[in-house]
Amino acid sequence: MATTLITGGTVVSATGRSRADVLIDGETIVAVLAPGSQLLGTDLRQGVDTVVDATGKYVIPGGVDAHTHFELPFGGTEASDTFESGTRAAAWGGTTSVIDFAVQTTGTRVQDGLAKWHEKAAGNCAIDYGFHQIMGGVDEDSLQAMKGFVDEGITSYKMFMAYPGVFYSDDGQILRAMQTAADLGLLTMMHAENGPAIDVLAAQLAEAGKTTPYYHGIARAWQMEEEATHRAIMLGNLTGAPLYVVHVSAKQAVEQLAWARDKGQNVFGETCPQYLYLSLEEQLGASSDEWGAFEGAKWVCSTPLRSREEGHQDHMWQALRTNDLQMVSTDHCPFCMKGQKELGKDDFRKIPNGIGSIEHRMDLMYQGVVTGEITLERWVELTSTTPARMFGMYGKKGVIQPGADGDIVVYDPNGHTSISAATHHMNMDHSAWEGFEIDGHVDTVLSRGKVIVDDGRYLGAKGDGRFIKRGLTQYLI
Amino acid sequence: MATTLITGGTVVSATGRSRADVLIDGETIVAVLAPGSQLLGTDLRQGVDTVVDATGKYVIPGGVDAHTHFELPFGGTEASDTFESGTRAAAWGGTTSVIDFAVQTTGTRVQDGLAKWHEKAAGNCAIDYGFHQIMGGVDEDSLQAMKGFVDEGITSYKMFMAYPGVFYSDDGQILRAMQTAADLGLLTMMHAENGPAIDVLAAQLAEAGKTTPYYHGIARAWQMEEEATHRAIMLGNLTGAPLYVVHVSAKQAVEQLAWARDKGQNVFGETCPQYLYLSLEEQLGASSDEWGAFEGAKWVCSTPLRSREEGHQDHMWQALRTNDLQMVSTDHCPFCMKGQKELGKDDFRKIPNGIGSIEHRMDLMYQGVVTGEITLERWVELTSTTPARMFGMYGKKGVIQPGADGDIVVYDPNGHTSISAATHHMNMDHSAWEGFEIDGHVDTVLSRGKVIVDDGRYLGAKGDGRFIKRGLTQYLI
Amino acid sequence: MATTLITGGTVVSATGRSRADVLIDGETIVAVLAPGSQLLGTDLRQGVDTVVDATGKYVIPGGVDAHTHFELPFGGTEASDTFESGTRAAAWGGTTSVIDFAVQTTGTRVQDGLAKWHEKAAGNCAIDYGFHQIMGGVDEDSLQAMKGFVDEGITSYKMFMAYPGVFYSDDGQILRAMQTAADLGLLTMMHAENGPAIDVLAAQLAEAGKTTPYYHGIARAWQMEEEATHRAIMLGNLTGAPLYVVHVSAKQAVEQLAWARDKGQNVFGETCPQYLYLSLEEQLGASSDEWGAFEGAKWVCSTPLRSREEGHQDHMWQALRTNDLQMVSTDHCPFCMKGQKELGKDDFRKIPNGIGSIEHRMDLMYQGVVTGEITLERWVELTSTTPARMFGMYGKKGVIQPGADGDIVVYDPNGHTSISAATHHMNMDHSAWEGFEIDGHVDTVLSRGKVIVDDGRYLGAKGDGRFIKRGLTQYLI
Amino acid sequence: MATTLITGGTVVSATGRSRADVLIDGETIVAVLAPGSQLLGTDLRQGVDTVVDATGKYVIPGGVDAHTHFELPFGGTEASDTFESGTRAAAWGGTTSVIDFAVQTTGTRVQDGLAKWHEKAAGNCAIDYGFHQIMGGVDEDSLQAMKGFVDEGITSYKMFMAYPGVFYSDDGQILRAMQTAADLGLLTMMHAENGPAIDVLAAQLAEAGKTTPYYHGIARAWQMEEEATHRAIMLGNLTGAPLYVVHVSAKQAVEQLAWARDKGQNVFGETCPQYLYLSLEEQLGASSDEWGAFEGAKWVCSTPLRSREEGHQDHMWQALRTNDLQMVSTDHCPFCMKGQKELGKDDFRKIPNGIGSIEHRMDLMYQGVVTGEITLERWVELTSTTPARMFGMYGKKGVIQPGADGDIVVYDPNGHTSISAATHHMNMDHSAWEGFEIDGHVDTVLSRGKVIVDDGRYLGAKGDGRFIKRGLTQYLI
Repeated sequence: MATTLITGGTVVSATGRSRADVLIDGETIVAVLAPGSQLLGTDLRQGVDTVVDATGKYVIPGGVDAHTHFELPFGGTEASDTFESGTRAAAWGGTTSVIDFAVQTTGTRVQDGLAKWHEKAAGNCAIDYGFHQIMGGVDEDSLQAMKGFVDEGITSYKMFMAYPGVFYSDDGQILRAMQTAADLGLLTMMHAENGPAIDVLAAQLAEAGKTTPYYHGIARAWQMEEEATHRAIMLGNLTGAPLYVVHVSAKQAVEQLAWARDKGQNVFGETCPQYLYLSLEEQLGASSDEWGAFEGAKWVCSTPLRSREEGHQDHMWQALRTNDLQMVSTDHCPFCMKGQKELGKDDFRKIPNGIGSIEHRMDLMYQGVVTGEITLERWVELTSTTPARMFGMYGKKGVIQPGADGDIVVYDPNGHTSISAATHHMNMDHSAWEGFEIDGHVDTVLSRGKVIVDDGRYLGAKGDGRFIKRGLTQYLI
Repeated sequence: MATTLITGGTVVSATGRSRADVLIDGETIVAVLAPGSQLLGTDLRQGVDTVVDATGKYVIPGGVDAHTHFELPFGGTEASDTFESGTRAAAWGGTTSVIDFAVQTTGTRVQDGLAKWHEKAAGNCAIDYGFHQIMGGVDEDSLQAMKGFVDEGITSYKMFMAYPGVFYSDDGQILRAMQTAADLGLLTMMHAENGPAIDVLAAQLAEAGKTTPYYHGIARAWQMEEEATHRAIMLGNLTGAPLYVVHVSAKQAVEQLAWARDKGQNVFGETCPQYLYLSLEEQLGASSDEWGAFEGAKWVCSTPLRSREEGHQDHMWQALRTNDLQMVSTDHCPFCMKGQKELGKDDFRKIPNGIGSIEHRMDLMYQGVVTGEITLERWVELTSTTPARMFGMYGKKGVIQPGADGDIVVYDPNGHTSISAATHHMNMDHSAWEGFEIDGHVDTVLSRGKVIVDDGRYLGAKGDGRFIKRGLTQYLI
Repeated sequence: MATTLITGGTVVSATGRSRADVLIDGETIVAVLAPGSQLLGTDLRQGVDTVVDATGKYVIPGGVDAHTHFELPFGGTEASDTFESGTRAAAWGGTTSVIDFAVQTTGTRVQDGLAKWHEKAAGNCAIDYGFHQIMGGVDEDSLQAMKGFVDEGITSYKMFMAYPGVFYSDDGQILRAMQTAADLGLLTMMHAENGPAIDVLAAQLAEAGKTTPYYHGIARAWQMEEEATHRAIMLGNLTGAPLYVVHVSAKQAVEQLAWARDKGQNVFGETCPQYLYLSLEEQLGASSDEWGAFEGAKWVCSTPLRSREEGHQDHMWQALRTNDLQMVSTDHCPFCMKGQKELGKDDFRKIPNGIGSIEHRMDLMYQGVVTGEITLERWVELTSTTPARMFGMYGKKGVIQPGADGDIVVYDPNGHTSISAATHHMNMDHSAWEGFEIDGHVDTVLSRGKVIVDDGRYLGAKGDGRFIKRGLTQYLI
Repeated sequence: MATTLITGGTVVSATGRSRADVLIDGETIVAVLAPGSQLLGTDLRQGVDTVVDATGKYVIPGGVDAHTHFELPFGGTEASDTFESGTRAAAWGGTTSVIDFAVQTTGTRVQDGLAKWHEKAAGNCAIDYGFHQIMGGVDEDSLQAMKGFVDEGITSYKMFMAYPGVFYSDDGQILRAMQTAADLGLLTMMHAENGPAIDVLAAQLAEAGKTTPYYHGIARAWQMEEEATHRAIMLGNLTGAPLYVVHVSAKQAVEQLAWARDKGQNVFGETCPQYLYLSLEEQLGASSDEWGAFEGAKWVCSTPLRSREEGHQDHMWQALRTNDLQMVSTDHCPFCMKGQKELGKDDFRKIPNGIGSIEHRMDLMYQGVVTGEITLERWVELTSTTPARMFGMYGKKGVIQPGADGDIVVYDPNGHTSISAATHHMNMDHSAWEGFEIDGHVDTVLSRGKVIVDDGRYLGAKGDGRFIKRGLTQYLI
């Protein structure tokens, strides 16, 4: 098997940084060494097949994006990135593991949903991938199916307090699933928005002719995210099930998470780059239309962008520092404007929900290091180490140490990255991040020891990525 | 230089564990290797001078005890452990770094205090040591002296809101010191108890004939710890100075810390083993004396033991899990019963304050792993990694990685340790922990690559330990 | 018209007490006078038809019980007090106004429900009565019907977050009703328990053979009251609708109310005597059955009795003092053991929910004055003045001043009352309060100037009571 | 004795309003009557000496201003209103009772201070007056003196956490005073600002040449008000002493009060009109001087005006609604610009602290009714009823009922008042409220039955006012 030595760089972990070399044998890291790689008189640089020069650069564990939706059917269309295009874009951006969501909708069998997603992904991925299981409602069958999850390596599942008639679970269903999850050690992921109330608001707005994308954000009021977050926390409290709230965007929701954590409850939350950088004000835009132009559709996602004046964005950064939010995922769910987003031209309710960011997460979060929002170590922790721990992959993923997979990114703090639809690798006809400039650059990406991105070239192949059979969460208190 | 290989064990870090070998060259770790230490065809076990077999054991970074008082003059006597006896006991217990407090009292120069402590320690220590600087009040001179701290490697200093006339600083003084600390990057450590109020309560109790050790705890009411904690937080808020509260024992004080952290302030706290395991109820004891017997003097420390009925102990454990408290130190401040504690036979106010625990911290905290209070990783984080980061030593201390000092403990989870004054190595005629049984054992201790404790034998020498010139804190958000 | 003078007593209001006489002309108070009733040289005692001697006694505005259910169909039976028997019992206990609930259930028209309740009450009541409107779900019809409420004198309405299939409204329905209520100035009353989740828990307990009354309280966990309370608060926050939470029993629910009030939201709560005095522990009882005997059925109500060990009862008293709860109603909903409660002999889910207390509210709350839980003024405020203000009757009810209805109680602090099914006037074959002893006594009760209870005799008649057409709430901040 | 009838008006109380007439016999209210004053066939309007026509107007209990400083020595000068001028101005503004502060400074006897203030006031006041006792530090003598307070009718006393060397008490002293107060039932009033820290900040600003009045507000940072408020709360918690915080201006201080009240502690707070209407931004002004002009000196008071941008003013109004603040006093402490305020022309620290508002409190707070901040009833409660209850005068003051003093104001909601130094009656050469316009007017003022202000004429006389021997607080929970 081939050997690779990454030499001259600064290895960054969740707790600190050190000058060190990394030796990979085949797919696995076998040693972390003092710089120079001289060991007991032997110069290890001589014996290896490949030497990657990381001088002046950061050597970090490959990014772990725990929230993606490739090929997701939604609103009569399908997310525009396939497992192939999406994971390749991920690789370009320094992400070497993703966890996508296998989908069960009401009236179908959980096992069938999982099987279908395995089929979609197998042989198509550029990087390693796992699955969470979406459960669209809960019944005896699905509760039974949950008992097989751990054996399948599916140790987390997601429910929705929104989207009645599609993914929605009522509180009795959530309660039953959480009871089962608590028994099995599964992590419960929650889309925490009060769907029944939001749908009323959305219908009222639409009826009043307020149909532009901006009103998507008005309908999905922060009160209804805060409320659902609290409700999920209390169902977790009652059942003892650890809770992970996805795509947190409202500061008041964070306050609920902090409140529960202060009491010692196992409650976690992720946010996404859009909630750190973008806002409802920009979505309203400077359109001649007083209600905002349709261009804002590119930023229609749920939970929605929040008002900057109300301070949500600053609060998300703060929560990332205080560990009231533990990690950053993308909720990558791309739709093209043409033929997809424009389905909702006349009614924001018909705009497919989602933003594509999988290629940019590592860069966008690194920019937070540059601007002083987070430390370099926290960057690694938020984007790789904690996602790996949270979802039971740590040891193989999320860390540079012997025994870990050779998933490594060489990141150049002196490089530069300009984000644009013209240059990105995601299957989207626009970018939600057009014009963003990053003071850093993903130079080299290794996936299980293989260099798949280097110096602006993609060296990997379709099917490089394997399914990750995950263990139980390693993050509980 | 000699080389040492620790092989067969499970290396535990703050974020996870892995089967790995550790290679030390001279004083420094040079590699962390896949088990078996086969690298590019070479069996590294052959070339090393010493092989430590850690099969079935945990390999952890040496403990860092950030709060000790050797040879401290207090209440007309002096803490009974010298730097020699105290650091040796530390080594026995798996602690390889301590940070003691150089003392300046009102009317003396800060520089003289520091010089005196350097003199006490130099050439006497079994393990590496650093200093915090105690400031007994603040004036132009001491503010000037603070400017030299960073160059001296003294990057943290401590003030007292208690002990008027001895160590006490008033709020104006604290404000000025914190302003200076904020400018310099120093970490402000605070003894947070409202001394002026406590002294009134203590005098009233004494006057009422309530003179047994139990009343020490009654006088030092939790309200006065909570209050001082809040006050220190607000002075930190005003000045922007990061705050580290020592020996937190009241759950309400923790609530104040959590409140400030939820708002994003750089506020930290340590607790000590006594606040996790011991309580005021035990101190009261089953004496025939309704007010408790003098035996309770062995547990007289400040902050005091708290009521178990009020739930402080459980709350301290919880706070260690939620990271509202970040680390565990000992506040090691030993006094013998004979000739020392008994100075307060007739008046609890004359009992020298302090408990000796330096030898047992790693064991006592490991027992929390056994009982399920904390995870194995959190054990390492609380006792080694975070103390090293908090006080600017990480990279050399607190972590097992290339470039770090060879400070390593091999801990046997199948071993057993019985704590007793009959067998401990501290210079004390009693143990605050008499009869405690630990389901684990410190087997081997290396300090900068040298095995100083192994299999029940002490192999080190007086003067092994060197002064640690610390950098700025690496833990700020 | 007849005139009545109440003389020699101490008139107690929500803010204080004074020695004063009260003159009633016909149905209305016309003067509050200095003791002795000498005015400009005239002795008013001479000219009146009736003089009530209140020497040494308290003269208070008649009690207002804002939460009763007479003749309520529930669980296949009907509350055992009719409007006749229930209001007469109220009068015996010093309550001179009640607000009962007109019921609309899903599939029926709101107007029909109200008409039916008018029919039940008209000509049958001993004291004045008003109605809140229960809405069993919300649709276009019922939203339309709400617009007529103010004209009908029905200025408050109630929704249920519990009892799916019977009274339950989902969050979208609640949102719509609250929007309408905010526009109209109606007060939204909420039964705040998460019914869908509770029903799952109850079914699981029943399936596990845990069928005794005690499990009623286990199924209705405090988390599900706290959760629903928070949810109702946030829907109120979103819509701007003032919220009144009925029968609060969990301390954590009170904490939610306090949290919202601290932020300035119009949020109110009532508790009931059972949540102040009774507990789940008593309901479990000392039965030979480890799960509690069926006798506990007499205390089956929703929200349920809470654990005393968890401190709910003390917290309710505290909240009454701090005004985080504003008033005390009975939620009077009586069922006999025989033929009613015993419907649930084999399944707690079939026990009709309810406790009968209307006759004892004034006494039970006065006992809180005796034991020092509340002040004399707060007693009057909680039981009369605030209920009258909250529900738009103040001026006529809830206060002793010119223009007010002559609804007055002469209460003897030197009297004594023993509560027993053997002596009470409610139509119940048992008492939830058997054996309670009160250090006070309702001596005389006047309803609109007529003495209806005096010295142990009932002097009123069926039909004395008239419908109260209420105005908008007078309690908003 | 003369009789007076106030007829045709709307009597407003803390809980509601009613059309009613009020009959006064001599100094005391003897009856509250139905409008028209026909009683048992007699027309009471015929027999009275004086009829006041209140048609279309509010009839309210005379204002109670519980915080004034007449003739207070401060900063080398003396508050410019004497008891004569100040109480007369109060009368003009509808205030019929004041509580001033007798002063003891360190090194003098409490009894002597009280005697001196009795001397200043006796025979000079236009309206009734009481005293709180200021204690400048606490020692055995003053603790002894406290035991006489209740007999003297001095049931409240004030300590200062600010002004070291003048009024300051350290925490040990506060503790001892609070212990004594708890025993005696005295109400502890606190000036809650951290003086030692503020004095450091002020000196630093002055040294940096930042000497304009604006920097008074910068030096007295909200953190130091919040902190002291929390500290006072905890000392109250420890001792069981009820606490009343004077002149609350920071929203964070209110949050501390709310926090303590939520836990059931007897904690109260007043704010003053300046903290509701004025702000630091106005004090900075539009001066050419970047640091603000000296004109801002007219608004130098302690606690200081707060930033409007930070939202303190809105929060004070909210707290008045939620009862987290219970009442509004003036902290009337007038100084002229000429010869007094200008003492601090070159150093804000030398500007005498204080604003004169005694004449305008009732008007300024009524304007809050007009703008919808508070209800009419809350206006009466905040300015009269609660102050009377809080400080043990209720029954005689703060309410219109038989037995109460004839202290009554007829307030015209259709009148208008323009505030200006040109027209006010306070002894000040400027007005802090210049240009404020009020949509209401004080028409008639009665003090113990005597009309002292009517239709723009002052009809009272020096010496009308008598000392009020107050009872214990009537407001505890």
